[in-house]
Amino acid sequence: MRSKKTDSGTAAGQGELAILLEIRRRTARASQSGLRLGIGDDCALLAPRPGEELAVTTDLSIAGRHFRLDWHSPEAIGHRALARGLSDLAAMGARPVAAFLSLGLPRPLTLAHGRKPAWVGRFLDGLLALAAAHKTPLAGGDLAESPLAVADIVLVGAVPCGRALLRSGARPGHLLYVTGALGGAAAGLACLAELAGKQKPAQTQSPLPQPPAIPKKLAALLVPHLYPQPRNAQGLWLQRRGLASAALDLSDGLSTDLTHLCQESGVAAEVDSAALPQHSGATLAQALHGGEDYELLFTAPAAARLPRSIAGVPVTRIGRILRPRPGQPQITLLTAQGPQPLQPHGWEHFS
Amino acid sequence: MRSKKTDSGTAAGQGELAILLEIRRRTARASQSGLRLGIGDDCALLAPRPGEELAVTTDLSIAGRHFRLDWHSPEAIGHRALARGLSDLAAMGARPVAAFLSLGLPRPLTLAHGRKPAWVGRFLDGLLALAAAHKTPLAGGDLAESPLAVADIVLVGAVPCGRALLRSGARPGHLLYVTGALGGAAAGLACLAELAGKQKPAQTQSPLPQPPAIPKKLAALLVPHLYPQPRNAQGLWLQRRGLASAALDLSDGLSTDLTHLCQESGVAAEVDSAALPQHSGATLAQALHGGEDYELLFTAPAAARLPRSIAGVPVTRIGRILRPRPGQPQITLLTAQGPQPLQPHGWEHFS
Repeated sequence: MRSKKTDSGTAAGQGELAILLEIRRRTARASQSGLRLGIGDDCALLAPRPGEELAVTTDLSIAGRHFRLDWHSPEAIGHRALARGLSDLAAMGARPVAAFLSLGLPRPLTLAHGRKPAWVGRFLDGLLALAAAHKTPLAGGDLAESPLAVADIVLVGAVPCGRALLRSGARPGHLLYVTGALGGAAAGLACLAELAGKQKPAQTQSPLPQPPAIPKKLAALLVPHLYPQPRNAQGLWLQRRGLASAALDLSDGLSTDLTHLCQESGVAAEVDSAALPQHSGATLAQALHGGEDYELLFTAPAAARLPRSIAGVPVTRIGRILRPRPGQPQITLLTAQGPQPLQPHGWEHFS
Repeated sequence: MRSKKTDSGTAAGQGELAILLEIRRRTARASQSGLRLGIGDDCALLAPRPGEELAVTTDLSIAGRHFRLDWHSPEAIGHRALARGLSDLAAMGARPVAAFLSLGLPRPLTLAHGRKPAWVGRFLDGLLALAAAHKTPLAGGDLAESPLAVADIVLVGAVPCGRALLRSGARPGHLLYVTGALGGAAAGLACLAELAGKQKPAQTQSPLPQPPAIPKKLAALLVPHLYPQPRNAQGLWLQRRGLASAALDLSDGLSTDLTHLCQESGVAAEVDSAALPQHSGATLAQALHGGEDYELLFTAPAAARLPRSIAGVPVTRIGRILRPRPGQPQITLLTAQGPQPLQPHGWEHFS
């Protein structure tokens, strides 16, 4: 996290340096996670423990694409940006060491409006609250003015050498599991879109777009979309026990992410629709194809004894891994009407 | 580097997956630098050598802010994005281990136009050529459609524990050095701005903005701006010899970056204007305040014997470190007209 100028007008101003100073004040310079040197130099320094390798992931969040200023509160946008990165570490079974944030913001989002705090401060509230819950220090990044709000989050984790959970380890006969419930984020997003559609135009045309007020009775339905909980404790548990043969996180939806797993492992799979842990309020289609649940999808040999829950989150067996069958669909969905091919219905940019 | 969908239409299409496949084809999955697992899983895996710690830096490049599509060729934009990150590793004396790229692009930049390759392919040409020259594998990242072109580059390097060059180690009496010449990037930028200003409007209004043609006689003047060379060999040399007491890279300009060094070390400094290695074609103001030269600024005890050049790049003594003097300017410029305060004239976003 570097400033572009160092002269006067720091604390009082709303410049880059003021934001930097706020971030620096709110983040530790070193921590037990392995962060040796945080914000303030050209690089941060991380010290893995002997015998560990490092897992690195980046996730880009762009206004209008991954979030909307007129739909999402700044706290939720900050939370969601970090959750995406933490979830990638969870999928590898890596413990978080440090997070980095590259942030490009339009000027109005950096200014306080009267007594209201600046958008960027509330964004950091959301991001740093989740970081604290996962004992993950914000160790650096970059900051720039931008016509469009963009946030690239980088997570660095550590895992004992050779023990990371990969996508490529699933073998025919292994069983297929998910943590938690599926489709909750997609159901919450649909609800949020409806609320936003009912807003008066005046609200959406203010200089700083305002997300819709959320009626109390709908709050619980929106939580899986606005504040998804990455499954780091569960990923770490699986890695330490050595029970999972392959894993990834459900960011693009079960049908798409299971296809990834099958492709990297060179296998096929079948999913039992009756076994799917549908989130309350979610449709079967949302459970099959909805993205951003950030649950873990993993496989384990049939002989492995999996508990019913890991660190308080249910674990459900939803299918099994098959030998690849040339000319046959990679994934089969078992339904009351018989087996059906399950095509990936996630989305691809630029297509 | 993760895709959002995995179904058909891959190689032929211009979708995210096609770009991903091109990147994957053009990058190593593992390397001697310490990259164990590259593109294709939730995270990349890096294995530092025993006794090493890791240096991490992120640099955000935004269209209209850090580059212009109607000024810079895609190759130069790719080169410059990576150079910023490599230069941060150079400043710490860390060897590059891997680079990560989060890329948001408008759809037209991902499409081939007739027989002309897509903008994104040429961007990767520039980025990967510099990566190859520094034996730095592109190990992952993220990809998204975006109304605005943004590229966040993440560099991970390795350095023996406790040996990184920091900004905070300068002490009164130490001498101040720079590598290479100063002001070349600012002079090149001024020249490029002039060329771009002479373009016909038709050229700048095409769907894909075209940078100006560069006359042969001006090419050399533009190189320091378009293709800066980060000083990784020099930073590594200084770290291994243990000669430098503090270092950083000149990204914001000497006056601003020396202020950073003085603040982090709690010292003052004086610079001898007659000693400054001005780049040919650069003014004194450009040498003092121009950014993006990506030379190294470092200090060493007076007893240290520095060579005249390191790995083929000249090293010049430009001043010395002083005790902080309350009420006095932090940096003094010695000129033929006597000493003058040197204020940081870099720039701050959002101010």
